[in-house]
Amino acid sequence: MTTHFTHLHEHEPRTLVDLVDRAIELKRNPPRDAPLAGKSVTLVFLNPSLRTRASMEIAAASLGATPVVLAPGKDAWAMEHLEGVVMDGGAAEHAREAVGVLARYGQVIGLRAFPSAASWEEDCAEPMLTAFRRYSDVPVVNLESATCHPCQALADLMTVKERMEPAGKTFLVTWAPHVKALPMAVPHSAAEIAAAAGMNVTIARPEGYDLAPEAMDRIQSLCAESGASLKVTADAAAAYEGAHVVYAKSWMSLESYGAPPPSDEETRRTWIVDGEKMRKTDNGIFMHCLPVRRNLVVADEVIDSEASVVLDQAENRLHTAKAVLLWLCG
Amino acid sequence: MTTHFTHLHEHEPRTLVDLVDRAIELKRNPPRDAPLAGKSVTLVFLNPSLRTRASMEIAAASLGATPVVLAPGKDAWAMEHLEGVVMDGGAAEHAREAVGVLARYGQVIGLRAFPSAASWEEDCAEPMLTAFRRYSDVPVVNLESATCHPCQALADLMTVKERMEPAGKTFLVTWAPHVKALPMAVPHSAAEIAAAAGMNVTIARPEGYDLAPEAMDRIQSLCAESGASLKVTADAAAAYEGAHVVYAKSWMSLESYGAPPPSDEETRRTWIVDGEKMRKTDNGIFMHCLPVRRNLVVADEVIDSEASVVLDQAENRLHTAKAVLLWLCG
Amino acid sequence: MTTHFTHLHEHEPRTLVDLVDRAIELKRNPPRDAPLAGKSVTLVFLNPSLRTRASMEIAAASLGATPVVLAPGKDAWAMEHLEGVVMDGGAAEHAREAVGVLARYGQVIGLRAFPSAASWEEDCAEPMLTAFRRYSDVPVVNLESATCHPCQALADLMTVKERMEPAGKTFLVTWAPHVKALPMAVPHSAAEIAAAAGMNVTIARPEGYDLAPEAMDRIQSLCAESGASLKVTADAAAAYEGAHVVYAKSWMSLESYGAPPPSDEETRRTWIVDGEKMRKTDNGIFMHCLPVRRNLVVADEVIDSEASVVLDQAENRLHTAKAVLLWLCG
Repeated sequence: MTTHFTHLHEHEPRTLVDLVDRAIELKRNPPRDAPLAGKSVTLVFLNPSLRTRASMEIAAASLGATPVVLAPGKDAWAMEHLEGVVMDGGAAEHAREAVGVLARYGQVIGLRAFPSAASWEEDCAEPMLTAFRRYSDVPVVNLESATCHPCQALADLMTVKERMEPAGKTFLVTWAPHVKALPMAVPHSAAEIAAAAGMNVTIARPEGYDLAPEAMDRIQSLCAESGASLKVTADAAAAYEGAHVVYAKSWMSLESYGAPPPSDEETRRTWIVDGEKMRKTDNGIFMHCLPVRRNLVVADEVIDSEASVVLDQAENRLHTAKAVLLWLCG
Repeated sequence: MTTHFTHLHEHEPRTLVDLVDRAIELKRNPPRDAPLAGKSVTLVFLNPSLRTRASMEIAAASLGATPVVLAPGKDAWAMEHLEGVVMDGGAAEHAREAVGVLARYGQVIGLRAFPSAASWEEDCAEPMLTAFRRYSDVPVVNLESATCHPCQALADLMTVKERMEPAGKTFLVTWAPHVKALPMAVPHSAAEIAAAAGMNVTIARPEGYDLAPEAMDRIQSLCAESGASLKVTADAAAAYEGAHVVYAKSWMSLESYGAPPPSDEETRRTWIVDGEKMRKTDNGIFMHCLPVRRNLVVADEVIDSEASVVLDQAENRLHTAKAVLLWLCG
Repeated sequence: MTTHFTHLHEHEPRTLVDLVDRAIELKRNPPRDAPLAGKSVTLVFLNPSLRTRASMEIAAASLGATPVVLAPGKDAWAMEHLEGVVMDGGAAEHAREAVGVLARYGQVIGLRAFPSAASWEEDCAEPMLTAFRRYSDVPVVNLESATCHPCQALADLMTVKERMEPAGKTFLVTWAPHVKALPMAVPHSAAEIAAAAGMNVTIARPEGYDLAPEAMDRIQSLCAESGASLKVTADAAAAYEGAHVVYAKSWMSLESYGAPPPSDEETRRTWIVDGEKMRKTDNGIFMHCLPVRRNLVVADEVIDSEASVVLDQAENRLHTAKAVLLWLCG
């Protein structure tokens, strides 16, 4: 049975916390002896990336492995994932062959496949990621899919742990304004890993912007397990009261799936993370996975303040990527 | 005199077989001592690639060399190859300078340049590859041109040798349905290397889909040298009788050059590689260079069967790439 | 105070010459002991590149560092550089975060950001490069901006030094015909470093094609310091008299900024570097940064002659890149 790292909920909370602790150790003492020498990591990007690609490439290389980056549809062949179809359309290659080949070339396969934003039913089945898992006999790492961004989640928890003991603290995930319809992977994963670490979770979002029910069920279970609370509110400002972490992210509504959120001033003012809201927190830190749109998602005064740990989160992508690679192919 | 690896026919059959034997040895014992440390390999792609790029990058890195991938027209400058022209059109750089520079930076230069599919006369002159050879004083490796795909051919022969002693066996190259007009490089090269290894070669194709006359002459000579037979037929099904290898590939017609093949059901049914046809073979293996369109070129039942060695072929690209790099710059 | 390598004029002439001398030594004795092992270099390209990218990638890898290449707007997120704006337009990420993150991942950040060619006032402020410097606490290397191409300049001086003792010799920068409106970075930098090395500088250009006043002031000062002369002329042919170096480059006019130069035969014939003009020089060498349009900028007879050192210039990009990386993060 191949171990994949595609969804947080497939792993015990203990495993996730151990990975984070390993990453903290790797940050202190980067390995110098090329433990993955002679190995390769193939990273498949169907969507843009800065942190995920750079951190994975550098993590692999720093451990002695060779990273190879592929962009099917651009520098490589567009891929089909449905089984049994007559491939007389746009895709020149089936994921079954592409993945089968990459599994011969490398010890780990990464995939970034964003949702199409056309149908949640289809997106939440994550057809390309599912195909990669099905066809790969080496570990698959999810570099962000429709429902989960597990590598980001590890870096998020690591960043929290660098600032506080998570258990019992309050982790606010707040919806934020945007101009595009964005995936839910990050808020899902951030809330899940916070819950897994024993934090009280608050989700603040406008009516109609609930996270996916499956994710909410998982967050609820994790909170229940650790005796933490889970709260959902539409009161943007009140949600900040007593929060130790404010994690901002825009995401699209399952009720108007694929549509950008409202762009009126009222929505923007209500939901932006600004200094006034941050002052309600219990000396809370500000988190975001990046890229972030300044003065739409978060005001300059917050992201540029001492409370902002967004660069630590990004840096910790590197250390957690090393931990994941060592775990999967070390 | 610089040794290039651009066309099979420039090398003795013995040289090709030796490279394959070296690759078999490298598969068993991958070198650990970075024999190409301090060297670089520049890979120029004018067309998409998955296996060729990944295998060359990983092969180079695993031998200690630095691979650099360039995509002129995208991340680098579009290139002119004609001599003496006033360069006031779309190309910002002449191949003479591009190649001259790459020859200063690296010990091997790879080039993928597909045919334009506008004129066979022009395509078969392989103007860009010819320019690369002309201007390079380091070895040039053909990563697939209009007429030849020599790296694929080495992996193909290696895969055959892993399953059988080639001499005297029957190697069927069968044309296959498709939705696009595809190059002839792979069928040329597969048939040439099979003939070079002493196999009886059968080419099955619809009338009007002959391989290029120059390639047929070479295949004929190689067969004659080793006492093997060469047969050409339009009887798709009968061609499978007694075959030990079935190598499928679509290619365009020289008579309607650049046009996609007929898409009627009759053509598709007649030429697809399916289980019924495979059962006529002498326990034959199924080969394809990939990417392959399932249920158009080959039925799922065949490519997913034990007879299919397509992933071995792809994997062997890595080992033969190492053999080629060590030969050219070791 | 972080040392950046973005503009020649921020460094003492002595520093520039030392870097060149270091590169000459590195060309003779390439380091074999991976002095930059465990380090990374992130290279951000907003425009195409062949030499700059390949030389930087190979230089970094040959020193043991990991190069990572990013193309925001293509494989990574389009970037905003203005401060205080509401980011509800096309850019998903602010340079402040992108640079902040890259500074966590690597020890050096490179940026190629060509001018927009819409407004010289805006271009000469080099907003993206300025943002990178502002936000980075690791060295930023300019991989060509609107006003300067310092890495090219080092390779240029190195190439001159390989052929002659520069001091007191005559360095002609001649404008050349083209079909596009091109940046002034290269002529600025070539003239500046020649002046810094004590060469007499001649700028030959049509009326209306003066280099930027700020650059001319710097070149004038450098010439004055070393007792060398600076001459500007519109007499294309006479300018070659006695020149030891002919450096050709097209650039756009500040008076018709963004417009391609005249394409009439008279302009082309007058300004192309051809054999007749070269024969007026004092056995002068021909230089160009590449890519170059043959028979528009320079006649085949010149670039293909013994006098042409364009491939040496390109090769020396590699050696000077090593010197720069060792200086900045060694």
